[in-house]
Amino acid sequence: LITITSDFGLKDSYVAQMKGVILSINPKATLVDLTHGVEKFNIRHGAFILASAAHFFPKGTVHLVVVDPGVGTVRRPIVIQTKHAFFVGPDNGVLMLSAQNQGIEHIYQILNSEFILPHVSNTFHGRDVFAPVAAYLDNGITTAAFGPEIVNAVKPKFATVKRKANCFIGEILHIDDFGNIVSNITACKESFAKAVRVKLSNQSVHLLFCKTYGQAKGKQAIALFGSHGFLEIAVNQGSAAEKFSAKIGDPIEVEFKV
Amino acid sequence: LITITSDFGLKDSYVAQMKGVILSINPKATLVDLTHGVEKFNIRHGAFILASAAHFFPKGTVHLVVVDPGVGTVRRPIVIQTKHAFFVGPDNGVLMLSAQNQGIEHIYQILNSEFILPHVSNTFHGRDVFAPVAAYLDNGITTAAFGPEIVNAVKPKFATVKRKANCFIGEILHIDDFGNIVSNITACKESFAKAVRVKLSNQSVHLLFCKTYGQAKGKQAIALFGSHGFLEIAVNQGSAAEKFSAKIGDPIEVEFKV
Amino acid sequence: LITITSDFGLKDSYVAQMKGVILSINPKATLVDLTHGVEKFNIRHGAFILASAAHFFPKGTVHLVVVDPGVGTVRRPIVIQTKHAFFVGPDNGVLMLSAQNQGIEHIYQILNSEFILPHVSNTFHGRDVFAPVAAYLDNGITTAAFGPEIVNAVKPKFATVKRKANCFIGEILHIDDFGNIVSNITACKESFAKAVRVKLSNQSVHLLFCKTYGQAKGKQAIALFGSHGFLEIAVNQGSAAEKFSAKIGDPIEVEFKV
Repeated sequence: LITITSDFGLKDSYVAQMKGVILSINPKATLVDLTHGVEKFNIRHGAFILASAAHFFPKGTVHLVVVDPGVGTVRRPIVIQTKHAFFVGPDNGVLMLSAQNQGIEHIYQILNSEFILPHVSNTFHGRDVFAPVAAYLDNGITTAAFGPEIVNAVKPKFATVKRKANCFIGEILHIDDFGNIVSNITACKESFAKAVRVKLSNQSVHLLFCKTYGQAKGKQAIALFGSHGFLEIAVNQGSAAEKFSAKIGDPIEVEFKV
Repeated sequence: LITITSDFGLKDSYVAQMKGVILSINPKATLVDLTHGVEKFNIRHGAFILASAAHFFPKGTVHLVVVDPGVGTVRRPIVIQTKHAFFVGPDNGVLMLSAQNQGIEHIYQILNSEFILPHVSNTFHGRDVFAPVAAYLDNGITTAAFGPEIVNAVKPKFATVKRKANCFIGEILHIDDFGNIVSNITACKESFAKAVRVKLSNQSVHLLFCKTYGQAKGKQAIALFGSHGFLEIAVNQGSAAEKFSAKIGDPIEVEFKV
Repeated sequence: LITITSDFGLKDSYVAQMKGVILSINPKATLVDLTHGVEKFNIRHGAFILASAAHFFPKGTVHLVVVDPGVGTVRRPIVIQTKHAFFVGPDNGVLMLSAQNQGIEHIYQILNSEFILPHVSNTFHGRDVFAPVAAYLDNGITTAAFGPEIVNAVKPKFATVKRKANCFIGEILHIDDFGNIVSNITACKESFAKAVRVKLSNQSVHLLFCKTYGQAKGKQAIALFGSHGFLEIAVNQGSAAEKFSAKIGDPIEVEFKV
C-alpha cells in the first residue's frame, strides 16, 4: 500500500507518471491518493495534510510525498522509517510532522542509484527518485539499502501555541474545502467551554462553543474541536474562511469562557 | 468493490482518511471514487449522482455515501440491502433514489459498536462509522449484524413531473461539468419530436430536438435525451447552464412539437 | 492495467460509470486515472497529456481515452496496437501522438457488437463502447477480434517547429497547473545556451536559460527544458502563463544566445 500526496493538482499527468513508474516496478502495489491539492509550494500545508491522514493507514504503509519547491537544488531526498510506516520525499520538513507523531526510528538519504530511474530530470524527482524508491520499499527492500543513515534532517519550526490563563495564541494551519478554519490549538481541560472569544483578521468575536456543526443556528459562526483534534472556526453550511477573510498562517487568539 | 461518493472535494484528506480506515480492516478492497464533487450539503444532488452510476457496478458492490449535513445530530446511520447492491450512509434520503431503483430488500440502523471505530467524532461519521461498516460488508459480514431492521427510513420528496398534453413541467436535477442542464423529464412516446419549446429562467425559447450533441449547428442550444435517460438542454461545445443562468432545483417546462 | 484519460472533470459520475462497466467485465482490472482535466473538446491537449505519461506505464497497458467532441457522428471508434501498449478511443487524432511515439503496429475499427454494451447511447461512447473494449483487451481478447483493420486513421496535424539559424518558431502545447508554459520545441545542440530571447503574446523578453526552477532568482521568468523534454517558460513559485497571458495554441519564438 502506497499513499501519494502532492501539490500537483489533477489537471496534469504528473501524478499518473509517478503511478506508471511505481506499477512498472511493482505491479501489485495498491495506490491511494492522499491528496494532490496541497497549496502549491506550501511545505507546512503538506505536512498538516499528511499528518491528518497518515495514522489511519495500516502498519507498513509507504507514504510518498512531493511538495518540493527545492527540487534540483541541494536539498536531499530521504526515506524515514517510523514505528508504524515509511515516508519518502524531500528533506524539507514536509514529512517530519507526521513521522514525529509516529516515532522516528531511522532516516536515510537516498543515494543508491540502483533504486532510482536511470535518467533523473532536474525538475521532477517525484517521478524519477521518490516514486521508484516507494515502489521498492513496498516490494520489501530494506530502508538501509537506499543510502547512508543521516541524523540532521530538516525539522519544521511550525509555531507552537502560546498561552496566558484561558487565552491561547496560535495560528491557522489549514482551511478545508468547506471553508472551516483549522487552528493549531489542541484540546485541554480548560478548553471545554460554552463560549469563546476569538481574535482573527483584526476582528474580535464571541462564538458559541459546540460539539458539532449541526448545533449552529442558521449561518452563525461557531467554534468546535474538529475530527483532526484541532480547534476549528466553522459556519454551518457556509464558509468561515470567507466570513473572516482568513488564510493559512494567520494568527488566531482564542479565549475560553468557562 | 466499494464505491465512495461525497461532497468533500479532493483538496482535503477526508476521502483518504476513509480509505485508510477501509484498507486497515479490509486490505483487499477495490475502491472506486464515484465522485467527491457533490454540491456541498445538497442531498438531492448526491442522490442524483449516485443513481446515475450505481447500476453500472457489479452485483454485490458496496456504495458508501457521505453527503451528511446532519452529522452529529439525531439522523440515523443506515445500511440498505437491495436486490443488486449494498448502500451505507446517513438516513437523510441520499441513498433512497438509487436504492429504490434497484429494489430495496432490507434497511438496518447501524448500532453495533463492534463494526465502527472505537472513538466516534461528532463531525466525521464518514470515517468513523460508514467507512468501517462498508469495509466489513465487503468482507462478507451480513447486513443484519450491524443493527435492528427499520421501516421508517427517510424518503426523498424529489419533485415528480407534471404534464398537460405535450407540455411537461419538471425541474433541474443536475448541471454537469460541460454545463449541460439535466432535467427530471424522462422519455415517453410524445417526447420524440423535431423541436421543443422550453421555459427556463424566465425565458421561453424554441430549440431543435436532437439525438446527439454533434447535430447542433455552431453554438446553438438544443434539447436531447442524455445518457442518463433524462431530457437535457445543451450547447454544443459550450455551457447551456451559463447561457440560461440555470441552477439545480430551478423549474423547467418543456413542450414537445410533434 | 488500464489508464483512463478524459475531459470529463471529476464532478460528475461519468468516469465512475466507465469504471463500473470495466469492473463488471473484468473485476481484477487495475485502473489508473491519467487525468480527467483535459481541456474540454481539445483533442490536441488530450494528445499531449497522453503522450506525456503513457510511456511510463508497463508493457501491455491499455490506454482508454475519451476526448470525443464528435461522439454520435460518423467518427469511428478504434483500437491501436503499438509495440508497447494498446490504445482505445475515437478516431480523431487524440491517440496518435502517443501511439506514433511507441510505434504503431495495427489499427482496428471497433465494429463487433459482442464487445460493446447492448444499448449504445448517442452521447457517451466512453461508457458504452470504449470502456467495455478496454476491459476485454485487458482480459486478453486479441485486437483483431474487435473489427476490421484500417489504414486511414485520422492523423493529427499538430504544428511542427520552424527554424531560422538559432531561432525556433513553435507554439504552446500545454500550460500546466503551476502555470508553466510548455512549447513544442525539443532539445538540440543549439539549444544549450545561457540565455534566450522569447517572443510570446506580443512581448519580446530576454530570459536566463536554466537547468531547474530553483535556479531562478525571486519571481523572474526563466526558460528550461522540463521533464517532458520540451522547452518551458516558468516563473519560480509563480505562474508564467499569467505573467505572459499565454494560452494553448499561441505561437512562441525562441532564439538561443550561444
